[in-house]
Amino acid sequence: MPERRELRGVFAPLTTPFDSDDHLSLPRLRQNLARYNATRLAGYVITGSTGEAILLSWAETEELWAAVVEAAAADKILIAGTAAETTKETILRTRRAADLGFEVALVRTPHYYQSQMTPEVLADYYHRVADASPIPILIYSIPQYTGITVEAPLVERLSEHPNIAGIKDSSGSVQRAAELVSVARRNFRVLVGSASTFFAALMVGASGGILALADALPEACVELYELSMAGKIAEARALQERILPASKALVSRWGATSMKYALDRLGYYGGPVREPLRPLGEVARREIDELLAAIQARAAK
Amino acid sequence: MPERRELRGVFAPLTTPFDSDDHLSLPRLRQNLARYNATRLAGYVITGSTGEAILLSWAETEELWAAVVEAAAADKILIAGTAAETTKETILRTRRAADLGFEVALVRTPHYYQSQMTPEVLADYYHRVADASPIPILIYSIPQYTGITVEAPLVERLSEHPNIAGIKDSSGSVQRAAELVSVARRNFRVLVGSASTFFAALMVGASGGILALADALPEACVELYELSMAGKIAEARALQERILPASKALVSRWGATSMKYALDRLGYYGGPVREPLRPLGEVARREIDELLAAIQARAAK
Amino acid sequence: MPERRELRGVFAPLTTPFDSDDHLSLPRLRQNLARYNATRLAGYVITGSTGEAILLSWAETEELWAAVVEAAAADKILIAGTAAETTKETILRTRRAADLGFEVALVRTPHYYQSQMTPEVLADYYHRVADASPIPILIYSIPQYTGITVEAPLVERLSEHPNIAGIKDSSGSVQRAAELVSVARRNFRVLVGSASTFFAALMVGASGGILALADALPEACVELYELSMAGKIAEARALQERILPASKALVSRWGATSMKYALDRLGYYGGPVREPLRPLGEVARREIDELLAAIQARAAK
Amino acid sequence: MPERRELRGVFAPLTTPFDSDDHLSLPRLRQNLARYNATRLAGYVITGSTGEAILLSWAETEELWAAVVEAAAADKILIAGTAAETTKETILRTRRAADLGFEVALVRTPHYYQSQMTPEVLADYYHRVADASPIPILIYSIPQYTGITVEAPLVERLSEHPNIAGIKDSSGSVQRAAELVSVARRNFRVLVGSASTFFAALMVGASGGILALADALPEACVELYELSMAGKIAEARALQERILPASKALVSRWGATSMKYALDRLGYYGGPVREPLRPLGEVARREIDELLAAIQARAAK
Repeated sequence: MPERRELRGVFAPLTTPFDSDDHLSLPRLRQNLARYNATRLAGYVITGSTGEAILLSWAETEELWAAVVEAAAADKILIAGTAAETTKETILRTRRAADLGFEVALVRTPHYYQSQMTPEVLADYYHRVADASPIPILIYSIPQYTGITVEAPLVERLSEHPNIAGIKDSSGSVQRAAELVSVARRNFRVLVGSASTFFAALMVGASGGILALADALPEACVELYELSMAGKIAEARALQERILPASKALVSRWGATSMKYALDRLGYYGGPVREPLRPLGEVARREIDELLAAIQARAAK
Repeated sequence: MPERRELRGVFAPLTTPFDSDDHLSLPRLRQNLARYNATRLAGYVITGSTGEAILLSWAETEELWAAVVEAAAADKILIAGTAAETTKETILRTRRAADLGFEVALVRTPHYYQSQMTPEVLADYYHRVADASPIPILIYSIPQYTGITVEAPLVERLSEHPNIAGIKDSSGSVQRAAELVSVARRNFRVLVGSASTFFAALMVGASGGILALADALPEACVELYELSMAGKIAEARALQERILPASKALVSRWGATSMKYALDRLGYYGGPVREPLRPLGEVARREIDELLAAIQARAAK
Repeated sequence: MPERRELRGVFAPLTTPFDSDDHLSLPRLRQNLARYNATRLAGYVITGSTGEAILLSWAETEELWAAVVEAAAADKILIAGTAAETTKETILRTRRAADLGFEVALVRTPHYYQSQMTPEVLADYYHRVADASPIPILIYSIPQYTGITVEAPLVERLSEHPNIAGIKDSSGSVQRAAELVSVARRNFRVLVGSASTFFAALMVGASGGILALADALPEACVELYELSMAGKIAEARALQERILPASKALVSRWGATSMKYALDRLGYYGGPVREPLRPLGEVARREIDELLAAIQARAAK
Repeated sequence: MPERRELRGVFAPLTTPFDSDDHLSLPRLRQNLARYNATRLAGYVITGSTGEAILLSWAETEELWAAVVEAAAADKILIAGTAAETTKETILRTRRAADLGFEVALVRTPHYYQSQMTPEVLADYYHRVADASPIPILIYSIPQYTGITVEAPLVERLSEHPNIAGIKDSSGSVQRAAELVSVARRNFRVLVGSASTFFAALMVGASGGILALADALPEACVELYELSMAGKIAEARALQERILPASKALVSRWGATSMKYALDRLGYYGGPVREPLRPLGEVARREIDELLAAIQARAAK
């Protein structure tokens, strides 16, 4: 077994390219990856929330995974979103991702039966998946989509498992990030999911981020990480402040829809979202155009 | 095309029987149906939330549907839960249910990308599904699991579609039920999903209910419906009050888990729930035992 | 001590009239009361939420109370809102209301320190106030303003106190109303605070309502009560449906502000609200004008 | 008019000492102030949420204010909580505080009529108070008690007023703190109310904090501020982590109740809280004892 690479830095949770007939477009995927490969991103997450994972068939998922493994640069850590609603299906998918060459699995909380997803049920779920997985897993807590928050006492317990490598916490709460860092065992990694509070989360001990914003602005996100790690507080804060409006508009408000629109404007391939998701309206498109223009004007200076 | 039957009365959203190896058990299903067939239930919902639909594979779903169509009495209206997260998959499933002989499709709101499920997106989704469906559809609003509530203005609009027959509203709000009745076109049916407020919902104009409680206590639920429709207010209210604790314990608090436990105690087949769901704890089991004993003592008088 | 009158029927929680200089206007109060006295309202609540109680000084409160006692017809039950944030101040006010001739005190939950208002703290509070009060008290639960809901288990306990006569539950939940009726001792009264679900609440056993809508439409509210009590279900339901839009627009959305505007349009005195509350905007005014025109057109038929 | 002092650093929102008969105890207040005067606290807030302001009569408030002005050291900035529910009463109180010698007024959002407290209403309220106040005011946003959050767009607008000096944001959200810093004019101060995220808030540009925890642990809070400002990130983060459990236990969970208990254990005067608040239970007391013992053990090393 190869040595585990450190889960540090900025990971981009890639969008899934569809063509105009709503089919997976692997050429477009490779085209995007060629550009991402040239950045200092630490790795990629495939089939996460930004990747419209929940809208893909299993056949599409496997096809996508195989293509990413082939096209990604060797220095990028590959993480597959492998969660299904049942324990056994999650295990099957996680094993398949490992077979294909993924280094880590990102496992979202099961969530449909919200009121029954007690800490005990979740602990049991993650233990079983981690026991059965050939690769380390990351817990994935994204309350805005699932209604479920993985809190510090559960993380404290789960961090003891040798095959649970960390958590992606998308709550946006810096206090929670700090608590997770504080309760977890030493080499458990806290990655945050919100670019809006990335700088502050790094200050309180997060190891990095899986940031949808890095799909559109990988260099800025990486720079924010590097400035923060280098202790250049004033510059990091200023960059964080510049990034905030884009993070809110491209990620928090319209998710994959606005992200794909922005990618198209930035020379990546975005393409359509899958229904029931709908293309961005005129007002939102104009708002994003202005935002991107402002960012590029600043970068040009 | 046969004449549409009225969506009135009490429908039972059936549990899905698994054997001890976590496989579908069609013999157990038939055994339960034999008993339900002898009641005055108006029909059955298969692969709803109580049926652990979200935990079934597509192959299991088809197998289950076929078995129900075969085993159900002819006077029961059969409703299949057909929602997937994508529009096209929902349409495929709805067509398959129609092919197999289901009379109505129950279509839960897509929900993972909650913040993007605006009334416009939902309207578009339901229009497309209804346009493509050979059988009438019911909108399914269950905010406690999806985070999404279908509100009256959207229902007003959707009720105009000739192939949208009604809504199952599981919010438990009697005010909402009254509003839905008030805004919808005349032959649009409002079915509620909460036995706890069934009597009041009928009083404000609901046509019936899809009541998980009817899995365990079909006769009591049907009696409550009939007393309410006959204007026997005092008796209906008294029965509603007797039913309330069972509804809260068997349905609201632990969902399919407690329902299956109760079914086992009542001579139906309940059996295990599928992981990550977990068997009921000792305290909850004892509470339900006492509840059922009280109900049976009263019935024996 | 005179015999207690039954807390049944419709109570109007009166607005507090201010003149254009923001002073209490007792003449305007008497003018309104003269009209209300001629209705079949069961009584009045003074200094409730609709009465802008929280915006009045103690001197104004006493002045208002005295004036109401003088001007109200003898057949009306008078209820004073007497809650302050401290236990001792609530007791002082309750005693003063009793001295002035009020028959019942309506005691809102203390609420600023929300997270500390546990059932134990609230039980203790209500016991102390009830022990010290010369007149029976009503618990007042209004979560939309206080963030605190008085739930059934606490009501079960409090209903044992001989000086706690009932509860005003403004949550709008018919299930809660049914539960409160079910758990409380026999002569404990459940009055609801929402005209939008008044009919359904009466069906499940509520004794009546303290309905802000009755300030503007006392006759319709009383008629809804009487039809419901007489078992005229179809007529009651139809009237409930007619009342619903007015209840939402005049009460739920803009509170005292829209109520005072409507009163002015209906020949009562509404007058200004007190700052920081602000007069209704143009759009809202027009919406209410249309609503009232529709109601009057129907009444004229 | 003297030059305005900078609102920077750590402010302690003082508890209000009551004796065993529930009367204000000014000797106890002076005793506490004597100790606080010897710290590097930037100033004091009197009659804030921790000071049980909402439970005090106006006469008590004035008495307390006068005593604090007399007993506080000259280098401490004095801030009075002056909010009432009406605009005119808030103005009266603010003027009185200025007369007595307070340098700044802390003005909580009016909140009882939550749904009507729109940004427009709040803007109007703060403008009127600021226009009428002889001293600069601080906006006070504390959603956990009021249900109302003052968001960035409103702050952007209010920060233009020359007599609105800043905001105390008690939401605990570091993202909001960052946004407030970003949108406000240059010399508008963002003070946070949560010691749990103080370090992160300072990193994103907050000027300081009004921290209840500083009542019990003023030196640690001041040290955290100074380390953060000096760019000693690792030490600041470590101290933040040590402070977190105390902040949650003494402030977030039981408010003034646990704070007064802790003060008694630490040699300050805490004394009883006022009813309906109740003394801390046995379990909570023991938890706090252990917490304080751990802190003192560490400090002794």
